Amino acid sequence: MAHVLGQNQYGKAENRIVRVRRDSARHEIKDLNVSVALQGEFEDVHLTGSNANCLPTDSTKNTVYAFAKQYGIESAESFAALLARHFVEHTERGVVHCARVRVEEYGWERIGAADSGDTGHSFVRSGQEVRTTEVVYDGDRFRVISGLKDLVVMNTTDSEFWGFLKDRYTTLQEAYDRILATQVTARWAFGFHGRDGQQQPAWDRSYQEVRRHLLEAFADTYSYSLQQTLHAMGTRVLNHRAEVDEIRLELPNKHHFLVDLAPFGLKNENEVYYAADRMYGLIEGTVHREGVVPVIPVS
Amino acid sequence: MAHVLGQNQYGKAENRIVRVRRDSARHEIKDLNVSVALQGEFEDVHLTGSNANCLPTDSTKNTVYAFAKQYGIESAESFAALLARHFVEHTERGVVHCARVRVEEYGWERIGAADSGDTGHSFVRSGQEVRTTEVVYDGDRFRVISGLKDLVVMNTTDSEFWGFLKDRYTTLQEAYDRILATQVTARWAFGFHGRDGQQQPAWDRSYQEVRRHLLEAFADTYSYSLQQTLHAMGTRVLNHRAEVDEIRLELPNKHHFLVDLAPFGLKNENEVYYAADRMYGLIEGTVHREGVVPVIPVS
Amino acid sequence: MAHVLGQNQYGKAENRIVRVRRDSARHEIKDLNVSVALQGEFEDVHLTGSNANCLPTDSTKNTVYAFAKQYGIESAESFAALLARHFVEHTERGVVHCARVRVEEYGWERIGAADSGDTGHSFVRSGQEVRTTEVVYDGDRFRVISGLKDLVVMNTTDSEFWGFLKDRYTTLQEAYDRILATQVTARWAFGFHGRDGQQQPAWDRSYQEVRRHLLEAFADTYSYSLQQTLHAMGTRVLNHRAEVDEIRLELPNKHHFLVDLAPFGLKNENEVYYAADRMYGLIEGTVHREGVVPVIPVS
Amino acid sequence: MAHVLGQNQYGKAENRIVRVRRDSARHEIKDLNVSVALQGEFEDVHLTGSNANCLPTDSTKNTVYAFAKQYGIESAESFAALLARHFVEHTERGVVHCARVRVEEYGWERIGAADSGDTGHSFVRSGQEVRTTEVVYDGDRFRVISGLKDLVVMNTTDSEFWGFLKDRYTTLQEAYDRILATQVTARWAFGFHGRDGQQQPAWDRSYQEVRRHLLEAFADTYSYSLQQTLHAMGTRVLNHRAEVDEIRLELPNKHHFLVDLAPFGLKNENEVYYAADRMYGLIEGTVHREGVVPVIPVS
Repeated sequence: MAHVLGQNQYGKAENRIVRVRRDSARHEIKDLNVSVALQGEFEDVHLTGSNANCLPTDSTKNTVYAFAKQYGIESAESFAALLARHFVEHTERGVVHCARVRVEEYGWERIGAADSGDTGHSFVRSGQEVRTTEVVYDGDRFRVISGLKDLVVMNTTDSEFWGFLKDRYTTLQEAYDRILATQVTARWAFGFHGRDGQQQPAWDRSYQEVRRHLLEAFADTYSYSLQQTLHAMGTRVLNHRAEVDEIRLELPNKHHFLVDLAPFGLKNENEVYYAADRMYGLIEGTVHREGVVPVIPVS
Repeated sequence: MAHVLGQNQYGKAENRIVRVRRDSARHEIKDLNVSVALQGEFEDVHLTGSNANCLPTDSTKNTVYAFAKQYGIESAESFAALLARHFVEHTERGVVHCARVRVEEYGWERIGAADSGDTGHSFVRSGQEVRTTEVVYDGDRFRVISGLKDLVVMNTTDSEFWGFLKDRYTTLQEAYDRILATQVTARWAFGFHGRDGQQQPAWDRSYQEVRRHLLEAFADTYSYSLQQTLHAMGTRVLNHRAEVDEIRLELPNKHHFLVDLAPFGLKNENEVYYAADRMYGLIEGTVHREGVVPVIPVS
Repeated sequence: MAHVLGQNQYGKAENRIVRVRRDSARHEIKDLNVSVALQGEFEDVHLTGSNANCLPTDSTKNTVYAFAKQYGIESAESFAALLARHFVEHTERGVVHCARVRVEEYGWERIGAADSGDTGHSFVRSGQEVRTTEVVYDGDRFRVISGLKDLVVMNTTDSEFWGFLKDRYTTLQEAYDRILATQVTARWAFGFHGRDGQQQPAWDRSYQEVRRHLLEAFADTYSYSLQQTLHAMGTRVLNHRAEVDEIRLELPNKHHFLVDLAPFGLKNENEVYYAADRMYGLIEGTVHREGVVPVIPVS
Repeated sequence: MAHVLGQNQYGKAENRIVRVRRDSARHEIKDLNVSVALQGEFEDVHLTGSNANCLPTDSTKNTVYAFAKQYGIESAESFAALLARHFVEHTERGVVHCARVRVEEYGWERIGAADSGDTGHSFVRSGQEVRTTEVVYDGDRFRVISGLKDLVVMNTTDSEFWGFLKDRYTTLQEAYDRILATQVTARWAFGFHGRDGQQQPAWDRSYQEVRRHLLEAFADTYSYSLQQTLHAMGTRVLNHRAEVDEIRLELPNKHHFLVDLAPFGLKNENEVYYAADRMYGLIEGTVHREGVVPVIPVS
């Protein structure tokens, strides 16, 4: 009975790169984690032990670093697109048919910039979210899905949860004023495909704006469920950012339970909470423009 | 311009449960991490703030614990199937159309069992791989994908890598005797669908055998690339386990670099290696039976 | 041959607590992780199985939450001091002789505060450093050691390393312009002991200032070694903060290696770096005022 | 006001090394993580920027790898002792006065060894505990503290907790049959000092035996508190292993809470537990021989 080699890909993952622009005394830095995955004519590599079509993962790593020097890193997305196109269009004999480049970007702020000037070369890592992108190029078109993860947010009021479906395993009490906290993972897909001379969006500006709308929608929404908040966050982004066609959010409900202080003769007036680890509710959903075929996969 | 609510799901994630069977002085335990995700008629929850169709994630959690008492935990797969079917078939007004239950299982061994007898109630956690499963039920059929992660293996010889494609960014030297080490993540899909009275496989036995074949294929394969080893591992499982239709492996190449000792007047005869963290090669691939439509998604 | 029960302590660790002040529509939050450890007359608990002197760890947890309601959380240090004093002075029959309370504090910023006003109840977690404190009370005096961890900083220039000792295992090249990056762990001890009516320092203000001086010293120091930078950071704090008697820094040298691009015909002019994980240099040291007996232990 | 440079040390941390012995087709491996810390005449390095006394951390790393080739790795302890002695006795001009070498060791098992023979070169990582050691040499004597961490154990019965001290914050119910589970961190100090020709213990054998006694004492002890179990574990080791003078255990109480199933009409007869993450009880204590001065520090 024959077996078939199905989807397969390979490349160097988690290439940690820091790129410094030293055009002036005021340095600029990009701090990325770049992962390359190549698809193509790799049957022999798997089946016969011949590596004639196998560009070493080490070479894909070298390419990342060399490109950082040759082209600089304008943004995570543009850098990933440059790499993906290279692997498909310039690998020998056309053995690479499709390349996926994923990037994590870590943010840095200047030390002292706020009040007293700064050295121009001293930075402190901004520990908030990690920015992400995934660029796929198949020789014809690009597909770009950007996002963020580990952005932790909390509303201390304006959140309720009641009127829910009750079955025989339901013991939850209705809540009319609860903490709503979550650790946002978001991914959004762009209309950009890069054919026919289509220009790339202003990626960094786009990112900052999407992030801002996510935060503001979270803050502004009076919430009757985390699902409702999720939907409000997604639609806010689509309403304000024309370059985005689809957005998917994964929102763990980071439960903050009111501590029962009655045994100690105290009344807990929504002041003292226990922040739980696990289990947690997990709310996931996609919002997209009408007529667009969603492309962001379920995790 | 209208926006559409796309794929969405919710439930309680990471319900940590330990189930003890105390039928005799020789206790049996199952240690699971269970995550529930429900799909169905949840538009109103997102759009209007009405929770009338929203079974609380807390109730899904309660169901996990109650079922563990009522039905016991025969295996991760059978328990997940029981839960998935329940949510679809017994949630009020049929608002749940599809349920996905994921489980991680942690292994335990008896203390002292090897030499001198044991207490029957004392266990030490086996720290090797974590066993995984994902069961989806849509009201008509089941889809079961089981697997494992964090199984770390190493061959200290019988691995080469040479004859590869060289481009202008290639500096890698050919290797004729190298360490091959990886941290196996594997997922395999079963032919089981549960319709027409189809019986469930013997899940625990199946797991042990798949695991054994993965290890043995890794050990026995003289390797010219990690891709080749991947393929050998996948086909070995398909050859021996009729209940498995498809298997996907994700194999990070945990690089062990020979340390250059020449500056110290020493010759490193494949004896001293530096075990690197990042970057690492990442090799992924599916092997499936002919005629089967692959269902295991790319990560 | 007799065995002796030596140092022992116990308590509830990692009590995760969020305290909301809702005095106005503009809420204030404190987000802490509180760990309690009690020393005292616990021989019987260990030796005879009698728990008559054993206040349950669960009770120490309850006390943390009750105190948060009763007294609020002015600062991590003052809250820890309140708890430590309570356990020593108010546990029945005086069985607790010494209490240690450790706190981690997680920072939050208001969403939208910078530009357009904010809701007053919406926050985003500041992911930078974690603030720490350890307060010990033995019935007579307090000892307070505060600190921070996970503060990641980088200078892209003004760092050299040369003229070092060379032995037969030395292959390192001298560096005249290198990246200097580290993840700061700092602990500093206060002169505060709390006897004779001695007032507590303004803990939150003190923390912000110490943190600022650490950052500024890192940024301003032209460095010939990470040791030199460490010393500059420590002395800067002692010079500016009279309430601090001693400071200890643990500075992993987060190596950023210049990538050799010569094989690709490129010259790397301090622009492209590989950020390594392990191994890493680790530089640790204490600076203290003359005449002070150092109390911060080596990790 | 003068400031004083206090305790300081530096070196290369987390050198990951795999050493293969290939004397026959049946290879042997040691998988270590080695961290070096040197103390000595380093004032100038901190104060003046002169690195004349500073052996680069890179050189300490090179020494680790070179020694692995030159001397092999008989055991974690003997290898650490070799390194520590070298840094103190052979660094130029005697600038190193004291060296501390810490090692983590990761265990591996042969694949297939149990049933059907094995390849002799194929291994699977044993994921249980990590073995640890710390060797300090000051030019006169050695101090060796070995240990383990991440060893997770569970008793499903034979554990009670009642008769405890009750204060106004006590709400805990007495328990007459509970799960007792913990993640063992243990460190034990040896009588070995290495002076006057004193021979080293058989380190690997010693480790296996200490580990066995810890597990068996945990299993065999009918427990009225985790403190009591801790004491039983410590004394068992001292009773059986003459080379050990002192042992310290850190035992987090990994709470397994009985789930209340009464709302669902079910009775939980010690069968269904929720495994909690945080908060957790933390029990720590030292047991040592009479007349011995304890040296293992509190964490």
